[in-house]
Amino acid sequence: MTTTAISTKQFMSSEQLLEHWQGHRNLTRRVIEAFPEKELFEFSIGGMRPFVKLACELIAIGGPGLKGIVGKNMEAYNEEAFNPQTKADLLKKWDEETETINHYFAQISEERFQETFNLFGQYEFPVYQNILYFIDNEIHHRGQGYVYLRALGMEPPFFWERFSVL
Amino acid sequence: MTTTAISTKQFMSSEQLLEHWQGHRNLTRRVIEAFPEKELFEFSIGGMRPFVKLACELIAIGGPGLKGIVGKNMEAYNEEAFNPQTKADLLKKWDEETETINHYFAQISEERFQETFNLFGQYEFPVYQNILYFIDNEIHHRGQGYVYLRALGMEPPFFWERFSVL
Repeated sequence: MTTTAISTKQFMSSEQLLEHWQGHRNLTRRVIEAFPEKELFEFSIGGMRPFVKLACELIAIGGPGLKGIVGKNMEAYNEEAFNPQTKADLLKKWDEETETINHYFAQISEERFQETFNLFGQYEFPVYQNILYFIDNEIHHRGQGYVYLRALGMEPPFFWERFSVL
Repeated sequence: MTTTAISTKQFMSSEQLLEHWQGHRNLTRRVIEAFPEKELFEFSIGGMRPFVKLACELIAIGGPGLKGIVGKNMEAYNEEAFNPQTKADLLKKWDEETETINHYFAQISEERFQETFNLFGQYEFPVYQNILYFIDNEIHHRGQGYVYLRALGMEPPFFWERFSVL
């Protein structure tokens, strides 16, 4: 048993974190679905981006971020790389990223989660913090999507209703 | 070594989770501070609650939830228990809850995080999921607060700028 194993009290396992994240991604997918086609691309409040742009940011960060961590590649992320023209395009890419995330996440060891990595050549933090950031950023932007839907007079999905796609 | 210790790959320790949560709470505190007094209590979009009510929900859940987990008390939470009249009242209570959270969180064992608990007599999940919910719910509502601030023409604090109060 290493010193690390003795001195740390586990909060959650990596499998539990992945399931939690994919549960959130499933809810975000349903928020994308809830938007009318036109408003997904056009509606905004207070000069903020329309929800499609927020979703594209999430797509540019999660899968590419994990791929960068696994390959120790510090290339910057590119929010313009994917530019969907329809809601169906966006949802298709969203589902592809589900697999990408599962694929790369499984390759990160317990020790690696604790190592510092300069994510996208810009965010130098322990890997577990980088991954928490992906999830937090998604919840944050999705919360903004909830306000857009409410302002459009629409009922968003229940926040607490997530099922994992694992 | 137990079977659990062999089969799980740790994502993060409980100390890291607490530091992460308190970092988020620090950011939420700065969002409360950013609201003008009147708008904190009155401004809303699409029939949603003003930000003071969202903050009171967070106060009703985090500390009382942990206290319930530690004491195995399944009493319902009460959003009406605290009813601040000023921003200063709200911030004072927010800071008191910081200590409450630190106090009770430290009493939860590694094994307990994995045990199912019927939180508030209503949410029967493993303890680690209950605690993740406290944080997710805070990020979600704070994201809504960001839209309120933007709609008021104000610049919210940077999402990625959190320091821990530990």
